[in-house]
Amino acid sequence: MVASELPKIKFLQQPTASAWVEQALANLDTVLLDHSHCERKAAGVALNLMFRYPSNTKMVKALTAIAKEELEHFEQVNQILERRGVPLGPLSAPPYGAGLNQQIRRNEPERLLDFLLVCGLIEARSHERLSLLAAHVPDPELARFYRVLMASEARHYGAYWVLATTYYERSLVEQRLEELATVESQLLAMLHPEPRIHS
Amino acid sequence: MVASELPKIKFLQQPTASAWVEQALANLDTVLLDHSHCERKAAGVALNLMFRYPSNTKMVKALTAIAKEELEHFEQVNQILERRGVPLGPLSAPPYGAGLNQQIRRNEPERLLDFLLVCGLIEARSHERLSLLAAHVPDPELARFYRVLMASEARHYGAYWVLATTYYERSLVEQRLEELATVESQLLAMLHPEPRIHS
Repeated sequence: MVASELPKIKFLQQPTASAWVEQALANLDTVLLDHSHCERKAAGVALNLMFRYPSNTKMVKALTAIAKEELEHFEQVNQILERRGVPLGPLSAPPYGAGLNQQIRRNEPERLLDFLLVCGLIEARSHERLSLLAAHVPDPELARFYRVLMASEARHYGAYWVLATTYYERSLVEQRLEELATVESQLLAMLHPEPRIHS
Repeated sequence: MVASELPKIKFLQQPTASAWVEQALANLDTVLLDHSHCERKAAGVALNLMFRYPSNTKMVKALTAIAKEELEHFEQVNQILERRGVPLGPLSAPPYGAGLNQQIRRNEPERLLDFLLVCGLIEARSHERLSLLAAHVPDPELARFYRVLMASEARHYGAYWVLATTYYERSLVEQRLEELATVESQLLAMLHPEPRIHS
């Protein structure tokens, strides 16, 4: 089993099945292109959060650092795509992101809590999946790239966790995280037919 | 006259009137807070353009570099605000941005051309206004900060110009730029009562 090779990530309820790793390795160019979209979207989400909560200095600082890193990674993934001769282009999103967004409650203060935890869950899952790619891709240069990025994704989910527990009671955060993490794992329970970072 | 102190910026049809400089110097904290919003918005616009035109490698590269720099400046302006004891917070936008957005035609290929030129015009005006602040603020540290940023804004309007002339006939670009630059100067002809970078 692939799962047992990794330290447990407390955000995630279910580890990734080995079927995803097989699908990803067989479609690495598509997964890299999807990864490029994920990095740009992650930067966009961080910017949107800053736009919605402009008075929140601590959050703005943390999100600026995250957005800068995501753009750095976006640039790096695009360079890898270029070297591999994969042109940039649109790619349909898997149901994962939309499924998680549906869980975000529309009124404050629940809304910000859900936003932070959904962002944290996505980062945690990205961390786990990049770890799996780092462990399994045959190309040593690509494996090194994934190792650097997975460390950064881990910092990001840590940052979202810290923000959530800064603004909300810890017991409330833990309870909501459990609910959202259940949905998150359910969304990935069946492998999406198209190879994606979150398929 | 303030205008004569500056080299002519070919994107702009009318130089900034000295009334704006007086307004800005008398309300520097507000202008700095607005500047913070401008930098975050500029990063957001670059990201949105990448999202809309994901296949356009040359443009994606140029916009990634721009977005990274804008986030860097956003961080720097926020540090200055913190040192000055000005809390982050929302601020109503002047009519300038919405007025320019109204000029963007809705169908391709006109839409992208207008987008690039509007972005270029905003960067050119920012460059001009930061130059004026650099020349007139009494605080030498702040003046130095504005000098660094104005150089970067100049690179950005250059980058938008290069992209426009990469994808469109030069004569077409010049003609449309003249039309948009006329609107841009008209939007600033009357000083907006609230002090802003683009008031």
